[in-house]
Amino acid sequence: MNRYAVNLDQIQEAHSRISRKISHTPVVELDQLSKKLNFDLRLKAENLQRGGSFKLRGATNAILSLTGSLGSQGVIAHSSGNHAAALASAATANDIKATIVMPRDTSERKINAVMAYGVSPVFCEPSSRAREQATQEIIDQTHAHLIHAYDDPDVIAGQGTVGLEILEQVKDADSILAPIGGGGLLAGILVAAKTLNPKIRVWGCEPTNADDAFRSLETGAIQNPTRYDTVADGLRTAVGKITFPIIQSLVDGILLVDEEEIIQATRQMVLEARMVAEPSGAVTLAAANRYANQFHGQTVVAVVSGGNLDMSHCKLGHS
Amino acid sequence: MNRYAVNLDQIQEAHSRISRKISHTPVVELDQLSKKLNFDLRLKAENLQRGGSFKLRGATNAILSLTGSLGSQGVIAHSSGNHAAALASAATANDIKATIVMPRDTSERKINAVMAYGVSPVFCEPSSRAREQATQEIIDQTHAHLIHAYDDPDVIAGQGTVGLEILEQVKDADSILAPIGGGGLLAGILVAAKTLNPKIRVWGCEPTNADDAFRSLETGAIQNPTRYDTVADGLRTAVGKITFPIIQSLVDGILLVDEEEIIQATRQMVLEARMVAEPSGAVTLAAANRYANQFHGQTVVAVVSGGNLDMSHCKLGHS
Repeated sequence: MNRYAVNLDQIQEAHSRISRKISHTPVVELDQLSKKLNFDLRLKAENLQRGGSFKLRGATNAILSLTGSLGSQGVIAHSSGNHAAALASAATANDIKATIVMPRDTSERKINAVMAYGVSPVFCEPSSRAREQATQEIIDQTHAHLIHAYDDPDVIAGQGTVGLEILEQVKDADSILAPIGGGGLLAGILVAAKTLNPKIRVWGCEPTNADDAFRSLETGAIQNPTRYDTVADGLRTAVGKITFPIIQSLVDGILLVDEEEIIQATRQMVLEARMVAEPSGAVTLAAANRYANQFHGQTVVAVVSGGNLDMSHCKLGHS
Repeated sequence: MNRYAVNLDQIQEAHSRISRKISHTPVVELDQLSKKLNFDLRLKAENLQRGGSFKLRGATNAILSLTGSLGSQGVIAHSSGNHAAALASAATANDIKATIVMPRDTSERKINAVMAYGVSPVFCEPSSRAREQATQEIIDQTHAHLIHAYDDPDVIAGQGTVGLEILEQVKDADSILAPIGGGGLLAGILVAAKTLNPKIRVWGCEPTNADDAFRSLETGAIQNPTRYDTVADGLRTAVGKITFPIIQSLVDGILLVDEEEIIQATRQMVLEARMVAEPSGAVTLAAANRYANQFHGQTVVAVVSGGNLDMSHCKLGHS
């Protein structure tokens, strides 16, 4: 597997490196839903990860892999989401200064998640270009080291530890479902799972309203999203230059789900799995529902990638 | 420990007996909240148990412990809550007919949870007396075997397996917090935990608005609730004749929490633990918050007993 930017050894090393800094998240069984779906559905609960998302794995591995003077001038990332808080957390825990560039329209919850680690975000205009430009300007001034949210081999290796754990926890898994945004999680899981068990099937799950990965695979070249109107805000990103070749070679396919299906799965997570998933984390359950026929009789592990749901409109019911 | 209705051997036997029928639920770490509270708080997530509550443990152990002709005429229980669904589930899985007596005002979700196992509840007036009377009339006619929600040694032994698992999963636990309604869960955990580690402290957690266990301990005799206006609907019950002597001998104390604290903890569970707890399951987190000073520096495991929250008033927020 040396032809990819990341191999199994790197993922196993990442796992040893980050093991005491992360939660080895549980796999949750769903017996009643499994009966309805006619396959054995399990959830790999990265929403229960420290900080509420798998992103801590990649960020921690990247921070702990810094060698020589890298990181001595601090680290930097641009992110409106979970990578921002994960990097702030991992850097702070290792006494490294972190700079986080966030678009002005980032939700209060995600801003607070970064500030909880003592990092004040630098705000920029809400476009990919403005984010990259603001980040580059700071790098030019401070020589901070960029840790990209997905297009970084150490980050991908960290996310791949989710795949290692799934294969340890569910020895008879036939299929894995993972969300695809920039592709770090999917690429890492693909390398780990397919190297350890070439027969296992791994599917990316993506909103129809942000189907750039689906179109990238169809056309054989990275496509940008053409629209951004999805509740799955973590999956609006285009697939990366490093993650795409891995996904292109190894993935069994991309499963598209509609907005209504994502919302319904987010709700179902609460009612049937008693867990909180953000919509980006519930796309795999949405795909499990929609494509149930093709998993008939299998053991399927759906990765719930994060649980940082905006609950500002939610009033809890009382009996 | 032979002076109690249940001993450690019975709990260990129960664990072997039910092991393949239940989930060995995870213990979830809460590193950010732990920092705020100044102690290491972990959650034993029985809300992620099959069926969404610890009740499956006791019901399954009771069903699998039936000997001779017991159960040949079916089993029966009166419950408006999780014991009803758990018994319906455990009985049906073992081809035993279950009769469930429920008050007419039981929530639709809890009725549906019973019906999901093919059992149609028998409805009665919403008072303890009406429930017991309706149940006794059916027993007289059908000779069904009563499986009480908490005042039954096999049920208590089943619930005690929660304590066994906690001591395996958190070897350095200093304190355990468990909700107290009828007392089956607390009594089972007390026998398991205190027999294996006499130094461990175990606290019952109860709403101030249903403080019958607190008053029972103070007066040395079982007291009935004087009011029922608590959101923690699973904890409105008086402590049982079998569970009370165990609790009286072994518990380190009862921690009372107010309604606002329970509601806040139920919400905090969603936002900070990314899990769904029903209010009865969140009383332990409420107690961890309120009594944080007395746990300073400890490792504390709070049992989240169930996750069958009524979400009918909850509209999920979108970004």
